[in-house]
Amino acid sequence: MQDSATTAFARLITTTTWDDIAPQAHEAKRSLLNFFATAIGSARDPVLARAFTAIAPFSGTATSGLIGRDERLDMLGAAFLNAISANLLDYDDTHLATVIHPAAPVAAPLLALAESTGATGRDVLEAFILGVEIECRIGNAVSPGHYARGWHITSTCGVFGAAAAAARIMRLSAAQTAHALGIAASQSAGVVENLPSAAKNVSVGNAARNGLFAAVLAQAGYDAAPRAIEGPLGWARAMGDEADLAALTGGLGETWEIAKNTYKPYPSGIVFHSVIDACLRLRGKLRATVTEVVVEGSALLLARGDRAVTSDRDSRVSIHHAVACGLLLGKAGPAQFVEPTISDPAVVALRAKVRAARDDAMADGAARVRVTLADGTVLTEMVEHARGSLQAPLTDADLEAKLGEGIAQNNDGMDAHALGAAVWHLEQAPDVAGLMHLARPG
Amino acid sequence: MQDSATTAFARLITTTTWDDIAPQAHEAKRSLLNFFATAIGSARDPVLARAFTAIAPFSGTATSGLIGRDERLDMLGAAFLNAISANLLDYDDTHLATVIHPAAPVAAPLLALAESTGATGRDVLEAFILGVEIECRIGNAVSPGHYARGWHITSTCGVFGAAAAAARIMRLSAAQTAHALGIAASQSAGVVENLPSAAKNVSVGNAARNGLFAAVLAQAGYDAAPRAIEGPLGWARAMGDEADLAALTGGLGETWEIAKNTYKPYPSGIVFHSVIDACLRLRGKLRATVTEVVVEGSALLLARGDRAVTSDRDSRVSIHHAVACGLLLGKAGPAQFVEPTISDPAVVALRAKVRAARDDAMADGAARVRVTLADGTVLTEMVEHARGSLQAPLTDADLEAKLGEGIAQNNDGMDAHALGAAVWHLEQAPDVAGLMHLARPG
Repeated sequence: MQDSATTAFARLITTTTWDDIAPQAHEAKRSLLNFFATAIGSARDPVLARAFTAIAPFSGTATSGLIGRDERLDMLGAAFLNAISANLLDYDDTHLATVIHPAAPVAAPLLALAESTGATGRDVLEAFILGVEIECRIGNAVSPGHYARGWHITSTCGVFGAAAAAARIMRLSAAQTAHALGIAASQSAGVVENLPSAAKNVSVGNAARNGLFAAVLAQAGYDAAPRAIEGPLGWARAMGDEADLAALTGGLGETWEIAKNTYKPYPSGIVFHSVIDACLRLRGKLRATVTEVVVEGSALLLARGDRAVTSDRDSRVSIHHAVACGLLLGKAGPAQFVEPTISDPAVVALRAKVRAARDDAMADGAARVRVTLADGTVLTEMVEHARGSLQAPLTDADLEAKLGEGIAQNNDGMDAHALGAAVWHLEQAPDVAGLMHLARPG
Repeated sequence: MQDSATTAFARLITTTTWDDIAPQAHEAKRSLLNFFATAIGSARDPVLARAFTAIAPFSGTATSGLIGRDERLDMLGAAFLNAISANLLDYDDTHLATVIHPAAPVAAPLLALAESTGATGRDVLEAFILGVEIECRIGNAVSPGHYARGWHITSTCGVFGAAAAAARIMRLSAAQTAHALGIAASQSAGVVENLPSAAKNVSVGNAARNGLFAAVLAQAGYDAAPRAIEGPLGWARAMGDEADLAALTGGLGETWEIAKNTYKPYPSGIVFHSVIDACLRLRGKLRATVTEVVVEGSALLLARGDRAVTSDRDSRVSIHHAVACGLLLGKAGPAQFVEPTISDPAVVALRAKVRAARDDAMADGAARVRVTLADGTVLTEMVEHARGSLQAPLTDADLEAKLGEGIAQNNDGMDAHALGAAVWHLEQAPDVAGLMHLARPG
C-alpha cells in the first residue's frame, strides 16, 4: 500500500537538511521580506485593533510580538493576528497556480513559535520552505475546483502549512508530524462568500493559529487518521475533490513550490496589475486631456473588474480605478486605494472615461490600453506580463522598497534597512529576537 | 428579497422570550443532565489530560471550570475541553435526523461564558434551546448528504449553535448576532475520516471554542457576509450541498429541535441498543449454556457492527460485544466497553458464538436476536424501538441514574442528587456558579 500523504509529508519535514533546502533560501527570504512589508503596512488598521480587543483576554504568557504593533501575546494569539495583518489587503505573496497567499498562514505561526522557543534563523528558513511546500502541494492537488466551489484556499490549505512548519521547529517525530497534519485536516475552514467581510480574517488567522495548535496537540500525544487528507471520508473528498495524488506527493523533495512564489507591486487584484503597468507607461505621453480610455482583456479581467467604486475594497478590484492610478496619479501604492484618494473628484472623473472591452484572444493577466486625447491622438500600450508576475518578478530592491512603503504606512520609526538586512542574513541569526524587535514600532 | 438565514436566525435569537421557550425547558434540562453525566464520566480520560496539557499554557485569566476536573481555564479553553469530555464516547445526546450530538458544542461554551459573565440559569436555558435550534436546523438543511460525504456534523454544525448561544448570553444586537453566525461559517470544520482518532476531539472542541469566539469577535465589531451560510460561495455549497431553505428557516420559532433530542442508555453505537435490549430481556431465560446467537437486522446494523473486537472503540460498535453485554454481563455501562472486560475470556468466548444476518424487511434501529441453548431450546426476542429512542425515551430517573454512573466512573465524591437538583431547578438560579461548583470533584 502506498504511503499516506501525511506519512510522505512527515518524512520530508523531518529528514530535509539545510543543504537540501539552501538553494530555496533566497526566495524564502524574499517572501518573508514581503510578509513583513504587508504585515507592518496593515498593522494599524482598525480591523487589527478589533481582533486584538477580542483575543487579548484569552492569551497566556505573552511570548511573541505583534508585527508592526507594540503588544505581545502568547504564540497562538500572535500567530492569529500576524497572519491577519499580513494578508489583510491580499497584498502578500501569491502562488499563482492555486492563488494561495502562502506566507501569512505559515510565517506568522512560525515566527511566533520561534520567538517563544528560541529557534535559529536557519531553523525558521527551513521550516518556512517546508510549510509553504506542504500548503501549496495540497492546494495543487485540489485546484482549481476547490476555490471555485467556495473554499478560501489560503485559509483551508494554510492550516496544513502552519502545522508542517510548527512540527519542524518543534522537532516532532515523523509519526507526530503526520498526526499534526491529520489534525490540521479537521481544522481546515473558510468560505469565499465571506471574503468581502472581516470574517475572512478569522479563517486566515485561524489557519495560522490552528495549524500551530495542531502541532502542539500532536506533541501532547494527540493522533489523527493516517489518510485524513486523501482518505474516503477525508479532507479532499469532503471538500468536494478527488485529490490529485501526483500533485500531492509526486517528486516530493525534488521540486519546490516556493520557487513559484510571486509578489505584488500594487495592493490591487493581480489581474489589474497589467492595466496599471500599461497606464504608468502611457502617462508620460499625455500631451492633451484624456477623453476616453478603452481597456481590453480576457473575460477574467472583465468579470472581476468592470465595476463602480464605492469603497476601498471596490477600488482594489476596479479596472476604472486601476486606470486612474496609472494615468492620473502615477502611483498605485496603498495610499491610492483608500480615502480621500478614491473619492477625489479628478479620480472620479477619470474613472468615468474608462470603458472595458473583452478580447478573447488575450491571455488572462494581459491588458491592452487605448487612450484617446482631446487633440485626437490615440495612444496604445500592451502589457503581457505584469510587474510581479513570474515572467517579470519584482527585484530584491523592489521588495526592499515595498518594505519601506509598509513602514511609511505604519507611520513610525522602524528601520527598513536594518529589518531588510536581518531578513537577508536570517540563516546567520542565533534566534529571531533581533528580527522581531526590528519589526516593532520605534 | 428573502431574509438571509443569518438574519432570520438572529431575529429568533434576539427576540425569543422565556414564555416562548418555557415549554422546551424540561427537555433542555434533560439534555443538560445528560451532558453533565457524560462530561463527568469522561473527564479523567487520558485524552482529556493531554488536551489540557496542550491548551493550558495558552489560557488567559481562568474564569471557567472544567467539568469533573479540578482545573479552571479561560472561557475559550474551558469550552474546548468540556465539549471534548461530553462527546468523547459519543454517549451524549443524539438528534436522530442529523446524528448531531447537540449538547456538547453548545452547552460547553455556554456554561463557560455564563460562569465568566454571571448569566442567570434562565439565560442559560434560553440560550441553550436557541443554540440547539440553530445547530440542528442547519444540520437538517444539509442532511443526509453532509455527513455521508465526510463532514463530522456535530463539529461542522455545532459551531453555529455555539455562536448562537453565546450571542444570546452576550446580548448582542441582531446585526452582531447575524455576523457571529456568519463568522462561524468560516470556522466550520471536522472530517469523518478522523473519527477513530483523537483528532475528532479537536474538531468538537473547536466547534465550542470557535463558536464562542465568533460571538466575541462580532461584539468587537467583526462582520460577515449576509449569506455566509446559503450564498453562492457560502458554507452549504462549498460543503457540497444545496441548503434546503425550508428546513433552514421554515416555521422558525414554531417548532423546536430540542424536542427531538434523545439520550443513550449505553455508551455504544446507537444501532446496537436494540441488540443489547433484546439480550437483556433474554438473559433471565437462559436455562442452559448458549451455543449460538444469531442477530438479525438491516444492512445498516450489519455494515456498522459485524466486526472483531480489538479495542475499546471496536467494542462500542460490535454486534458481538453488544450480545455479550446483554446475555453474559447483564449490563452495558461504561465499564463494559473497556479493559479488562472486553478481553475477559468468557466475553471473548461468547462473542465467538454470535453470527449476524441481514433481514432487509427490518427497520434501521431494530434487532431480532435468536439464541440457541445446549438443550436445544431456541429463544427469540425482537426489539423495534430501543430504550432511549424517541418512541421509548429514557425517563428523568434514567437520566439521574446515568449522572450517578458518570460520577461513579469519575471515582470521586460529587453529589449526584445535588447536581441533578441544580439542573432541574436551573431557571431559578441567579447564576451558574453553584451548578458548576457541584460538577467539580469533592
